[in-house]
Amino acid sequence: MSFTDEEAAYLRENPMGRLATVAPDGSPDVVPVAVEFDGAYLWVGGGSAVTRTRKFRNVAAGGEKVALVVDDTVSFAPFTARGIRIYGAAEQPFERVGMVGPGVYMRIAPTVSWSWNMAGEPVGETWYATRRAHHGRHGRPRRRERTDQSSTMPTTAPGSPPAWAARAPPGRHTPERPRVRL
Amino acid sequence: MSFTDEEAAYLRENPMGRLATVAPDGSPDVVPVAVEFDGAYLWVGGGSAVTRTRKFRNVAAGGEKVALVVDDTVSFAPFTARGIRIYGAAEQPFERVGMVGPGVYMRIAPTVSWSWNMAGEPVGETWYATRRAHHGRHGRPRRRERTDQSSTMPTTAPGSPPAWAARAPPGRHTPERPRVRL
Repeated sequence: MSFTDEEAAYLRENPMGRLATVAPDGSPDVVPVAVEFDGAYLWVGGGSAVTRTRKFRNVAAGGEKVALVVDDTVSFAPFTARGIRIYGAAEQPFERVGMVGPGVYMRIAPTVSWSWNMAGEPVGETWYATRRAHHGRHGRPRRRERTDQSSTMPTTAPGSPPAWAARAPPGRHTPERPRVRL
Repeated sequence: MSFTDEEAAYLRENPMGRLATVAPDGSPDVVPVAVEFDGAYLWVGGGSAVTRTRKFRNVAAGGEKVALVVDDTVSFAPFTARGIRIYGAAEQPFERVGMVGPGVYMRIAPTVSWSWNMAGEPVGETWYATRRAHHGRHGRPRRRERTDQSSTMPTTAPGSPPAWAARAPPGRHTPERPRVRL
């Protein structure tokens, strides 16, 4: 199961999201980010200074579990909101040319997502129902797989990893799949 | 140090944010939320079903460290964005009457915040500078203090804690102050 055509179109037409990452001490971070959706993965980053941001440092420190929400308020009267929440696994960032130009990007493999009100209807007496989707086990590709896939992606293939990435300690987060209920 | 008048006005005029919380297994969550700013604390919640959401269950399970971002894109051409990122400590939720009516709310004490472009200027060749503020040590009030403060707040004072709150295990997150660099 994957994103529906409607969800994919929404992600392409709304390239702004908010990304949550977790520091090694358990502190969350959340910031607005430009989001590039390639049909399967979500890309965040751009420029070179981005590696000094908290979100990139959290992923470099092993916090590969991330959450991203892309949502907008269509109207306040009548109240109409819609969006997609995505849990995912972030790979170690590398240099490529992406949506906001050349720079360092992280690729996020979605693991679970919930969308609401893709049709853009005003809210009724109860909150919107959500569509949950599980996105398979591509969330933790091995290095070999990533290299293979990169050659088919519209990206600059990574060379040797940048020095700052080599400083990242091994992952601290367990690979368990989150058991999620809304 | 606290929020500037400009930051406080921005928080009042932009009552929508995105809240990040962390589950006991280290997985982040992020969702859009209505945010009520009372001049010192930020309140999130409303209704009774909210206690079944991931964000409330994460806090009930001991994940009191949260992050909230309130931001908007003023214009795409020229690109103009502004916002405030807030790290905070969430208290265990209780019933009150808040911005979106009666229900269960959690109160968030800000610990550190970063604001950018409160003046609403188009971005230049470099990204906006941020103003960082540390908000003192009110982030972990004791139960006694919270009760005292509640009586001066426009809230329904909490009675005995609801049954779902009593199931929360003791906090798992360390009380260390995050060392934050952008």
